[in-house]
Amino acid sequence: MRIVFDLGGSVVMPKEGANVEKIKEYANTFKKIKDEGHEVAIVVGGGRTAREYIGIARELGANEGFCDELGIMATRMNAMILITALGDYSIKKVPTSFEEAELILNLGKIPVMGGTHPGHTTDAVAASLAEFINADLLVIGTNVDGVYDKDPNKYEDAKKFDKMSAKQLVDLALSSSLKAGSSSVVDLLAAKIIERARLKVAVVKGTPEELLNVSKGIINGTIIEG
Amino acid sequence: MRIVFDLGGSVVMPKEGANVEKIKEYANTFKKIKDEGHEVAIVVGGGRTAREYIGIARELGANEGFCDELGIMATRMNAMILITALGDYSIKKVPTSFEEAELILNLGKIPVMGGTHPGHTTDAVAASLAEFINADLLVIGTNVDGVYDKDPNKYEDAKKFDKMSAKQLVDLALSSSLKAGSSSVVDLLAAKIIERARLKVAVVKGTPEELLNVSKGIINGTIIEG
Amino acid sequence: MRIVFDLGGSVVMPKEGANVEKIKEYANTFKKIKDEGHEVAIVVGGGRTAREYIGIARELGANEGFCDELGIMATRMNAMILITALGDYSIKKVPTSFEEAELILNLGKIPVMGGTHPGHTTDAVAASLAEFINADLLVIGTNVDGVYDKDPNKYEDAKKFDKMSAKQLVDLALSSSLKAGSSSVVDLLAAKIIERARLKVAVVKGTPEELLNVSKGIINGTIIEG
Amino acid sequence: MRIVFDLGGSVVMPKEGANVEKIKEYANTFKKIKDEGHEVAIVVGGGRTAREYIGIARELGANEGFCDELGIMATRMNAMILITALGDYSIKKVPTSFEEAELILNLGKIPVMGGTHPGHTTDAVAASLAEFINADLLVIGTNVDGVYDKDPNKYEDAKKFDKMSAKQLVDLALSSSLKAGSSSVVDLLAAKIIERARLKVAVVKGTPEELLNVSKGIINGTIIEG
Amino acid sequence: MRIVFDLGGSVVMPKEGANVEKIKEYANTFKKIKDEGHEVAIVVGGGRTAREYIGIARELGANEGFCDELGIMATRMNAMILITALGDYSIKKVPTSFEEAELILNLGKIPVMGGTHPGHTTDAVAASLAEFINADLLVIGTNVDGVYDKDPNKYEDAKKFDKMSAKQLVDLALSSSLKAGSSSVVDLLAAKIIERARLKVAVVKGTPEELLNVSKGIINGTIIEG
Amino acid sequence: MRIVFDLGGSVVMPKEGANVEKIKEYANTFKKIKDEGHEVAIVVGGGRTAREYIGIARELGANEGFCDELGIMATRMNAMILITALGDYSIKKVPTSFEEAELILNLGKIPVMGGTHPGHTTDAVAASLAEFINADLLVIGTNVDGVYDKDPNKYEDAKKFDKMSAKQLVDLALSSSLKAGSSSVVDLLAAKIIERARLKVAVVKGTPEELLNVSKGIINGTIIEG
Repeated sequence: MRIVFDLGGSVVMPKEGANVEKIKEYANTFKKIKDEGHEVAIVVGGGRTAREYIGIARELGANEGFCDELGIMATRMNAMILITALGDYSIKKVPTSFEEAELILNLGKIPVMGGTHPGHTTDAVAASLAEFINADLLVIGTNVDGVYDKDPNKYEDAKKFDKMSAKQLVDLALSSSLKAGSSSVVDLLAAKIIERARLKVAVVKGTPEELLNVSKGIINGTIIEG
Repeated sequence: MRIVFDLGGSVVMPKEGANVEKIKEYANTFKKIKDEGHEVAIVVGGGRTAREYIGIARELGANEGFCDELGIMATRMNAMILITALGDYSIKKVPTSFEEAELILNLGKIPVMGGTHPGHTTDAVAASLAEFINADLLVIGTNVDGVYDKDPNKYEDAKKFDKMSAKQLVDLALSSSLKAGSSSVVDLLAAKIIERARLKVAVVKGTPEELLNVSKGIINGTIIEG
Repeated sequence: MRIVFDLGGSVVMPKEGANVEKIKEYANTFKKIKDEGHEVAIVVGGGRTAREYIGIARELGANEGFCDELGIMATRMNAMILITALGDYSIKKVPTSFEEAELILNLGKIPVMGGTHPGHTTDAVAASLAEFINADLLVIGTNVDGVYDKDPNKYEDAKKFDKMSAKQLVDLALSSSLKAGSSSVVDLLAAKIIERARLKVAVVKGTPEELLNVSKGIINGTIIEG
Repeated sequence: MRIVFDLGGSVVMPKEGANVEKIKEYANTFKKIKDEGHEVAIVVGGGRTAREYIGIARELGANEGFCDELGIMATRMNAMILITALGDYSIKKVPTSFEEAELILNLGKIPVMGGTHPGHTTDAVAASLAEFINADLLVIGTNVDGVYDKDPNKYEDAKKFDKMSAKQLVDLALSSSLKAGSSSVVDLLAAKIIERARLKVAVVKGTPEELLNVSKGIINGTIIEG
Repeated sequence: MRIVFDLGGSVVMPKEGANVEKIKEYANTFKKIKDEGHEVAIVVGGGRTAREYIGIARELGANEGFCDELGIMATRMNAMILITALGDYSIKKVPTSFEEAELILNLGKIPVMGGTHPGHTTDAVAASLAEFINADLLVIGTNVDGVYDKDPNKYEDAKKFDKMSAKQLVDLALSSSLKAGSSSVVDLLAAKIIERARLKVAVVKGTPEELLNVSKGIINGTIIEG
Repeated sequence: MRIVFDLGGSVVMPKEGANVEKIKEYANTFKKIKDEGHEVAIVVGGGRTAREYIGIARELGANEGFCDELGIMATRMNAMILITALGDYSIKKVPTSFEEAELILNLGKIPVMGGTHPGHTTDAVAASLAEFINADLLVIGTNVDGVYDKDPNKYEDAKKFDKMSAKQLVDLALSSSLKAGSSSVVDLLAAKIIERARLKVAVVKGTPEELLNVSKGIINGTIIEG
């Protein structure tokens, strides 16, 4: 199975300081999944470093496009950290295009990307990569265990979806971008790409255990399909 | 004034065959606007050539990301045609990044861009470029004379907006992407960029006359602001 | 055997509109040849799209160098179409240098190139690629079934060569560039490269059947050697 | 006068959190110097972000070359922050080669570089840039007010040089790299480049006031020459 | 006047060892021409270094395409030497495309190119550059004082052309490539580009004096036009 | 074993003219080492060509950074010669970054690099490459048979080291850069990289025989370790 993993930057750069043991655990998980015979590609977000630099740049009057460029740099630094932890399973080069990522897959290695272009979140990049390399599955690791109709951290009666269609995901992202306070697992652009590419998506808690589970067909979260 | 013009590819490559005189007229208009002391940047769409190639690629099973790459090539060919017509007012190179476009502006020339990256329409590129170079105005040349609440070609009672807010534009793009059949002047991503960058936008009929009018402060269309 | 195929752009973009079935047929032919154990590289021309854009650019006063750049873009779009049809047999990236093409061959895939540089036809690119990768055979697919002493579409007494030397090919290209109305299968630069690289060349009708035949050693056309 | 300023990354990213007002003050200083008619180029170090990422990468077993790449990314993010604060005085692009930096100077703008290549500190980059663009002066802003024979923060009897030769600087860097505990204002490679290029260097406290002073010919620090 | 100068590599790297004084003389000539108000662009050949490396590569079995790449490297080293001698009149970067060369001209500097692509002599590059930047004049500096009907070093009765048409130049290049022993001032590809671009060409002895003369309208050689 | 070989440019371009047979001998040696199952990477110096061009550039007033660029070009031409001799064992492309070199290794081929960046000798490049690809051994081929405490060509009582530590190598390079007349096998930057990367290094006479010997574990020279 060809799987794209979409991870927040907080995996590599959490608020409370980077945790080297945690990073190793993630790396070992991806190695195991690869050893089981799967093809693995990873997209990492910008996390704390991105937020810090973008905050300063905004105060100095930078436009959002330039802030995005700063964020992309941070995602690539995070990708380099994960590449280091993957050792021989990856290649010491962060791909900046999908063609390059596909080339690395063809070499039998794990490509680890960050952002690519202003205006795209890494969620949108992960969806685009999955589309470009015809991935069998896109795994989105979040801080909750699936897609909910409301933010489960705020509403006790939030209901989790076991399955949903891409159309439903787009609607959720739409209503989320309409009403402040509501929350969506991915931004609207990412949802749209998932829809147009008819990707199969698994949204799970972004722990090493759950990522490994997904590769074994056990999805403790939400499946988006159809 | 620093102005970004966003033109459909049909200007260069209309259905019925390219019209060299028409292209010259557009080029002369942009030269005039430049001679009046404005800084001009242009983004051109893919038009007929893009549609033709994307159509074939889709039938052959290409994913949308790869189709976007084909479309980008077509937009750049269209940009090269307009560059030719602009002669010494431009530079014989289609910029592929906003940094390059800004450099050409700094040389006192007119940059003409096409698309930049899969997942972005040229509308989104034009909005991003306007944001990146801190343009005073983004001019969107369409086939109608402004933004309407419904498609004026289909509904007699369609009402034109004289002014609207960026928030309203986003809402329109949202409802348009929700309901098939409704129409929006720009896609949702472009609308979002316009909103976040607080761009001043003029939506007018994309004729040489109206583009020239806009540069003189006469906007026969819709102003988006605030 | 390492084979370079040189195809006109009309294969992908014929006058009467692209024929998806035809493109699939070509792709399947190249897959078969690859499956037989041959190494395959392809160079595609610009066809109708190139002619259309260059026509407009010329009318607008573009110099021939810039027209060549437009033509190169068109050849690359055609290459992308063929790459789509080849699926996993190729890589979703049009090489822009011979080094890149060789790298893709080394990955066990089929590189599909277009033009590379102003001043070179795709015939010259194909000959240069064959030279660069030390190809065993360069196959030129044309609209007639070999090399003739005169244009067989115009002269009934045109005589086909079964075999000819590279020197003879150069002479033919020379006299063709001297006398308007005469026709040569390749331009002079391509002929010169064939001569200096001592390439073995097969000129055949550019149908899927004949291309397949060549890979089996059946050459219904002209062999250039020595 | 053509001046290269060499600043530590802690200017942009100090330990205690970035100080937007401080960054603005630096930017305003450089604008003033430019307005006085000088040509200004700046090289910024990696600071806290570089140290944080390199620390993690080292723990994960990265080699020093790869750590350098991470550091270079951080220097470029810092450069982008300073570029933002410089607004129209700079160009929204971090040059990655000296040629590019010279081009930006030729456009009448301030280039802001970070690192360029593994194995080079930003001190060495600043010296190389000064050499490449034939700068009249290289200004090194440090946390003390000049070059001392011992670390003035540790030794009360440390003596400041008012003037010294490049040869002396190299000797100091050498003995510093020999004996742990001793301190040098620049690394050995930077010192060697200063020597071979016969650069005039001013080492001063890296405050906005002192940088401005230098541009006026008032050097409250150490002059290296000859 | 916008002038392209096409110089053999032997100017920089003659057989008997480089002559620094000679190079300075050439550089001073180009500076003078620029000071007179002309726009100057230069293309330099590969000379002795190119011949030496290509000789070895051929013996080792390199194909001609790879030999061309070696030659291009040598031409660029020669261009760097001339750039050094030109100081502030040029930019310390050898352009590798015509777009880059045009950009340098737009900055008010002298671009100095070498080769660009396998299969093109620097004569062809000079002609293409002249075409691309719409030069008013292409000056070819050779070792004789114009174009002759036979090699004037071998035949006493060789007759110099004062004027000739591009068509005649092509014919000469053709017959030269047909008959071993005859000699042409430029290769066939360069002649063809001169013809198609309708360039005005001056062929003169490649001495500093004659190059300066040409810029003053005194052409002691052959004018190709029409 | 993964081995990096560091060879002077005089191997390819000796003073007395290139020796094609010698180059073939070197190439055959590297092929044998590869056939024994080792991974091989090579870095070549600039030799005579580099010295000649740098000499001229210096006389013309070039700064050392620009001279380095010239030297890098020469190293790459030398690398191309060795690549030619290696035929199918290498790839017809000189890598310009360590990532590229690693990619070529991953394709089962021999990367042959020259210099990479101003300020680095090819010794430093070889050490950096060995660090980057985690080489098991760095082999430095010199004109004497190991590391001596003084120049063995000048002092009869010079003593060869059989083993030494990286720290000792750094000290030797330091004292060598301090005292004119003393000689070091590598420059200080290369020594520092060897030290920080804890590389195992073999310094031997740079003949084909001795290079082959090293690959078999027979080191007739100096081992640097620890």
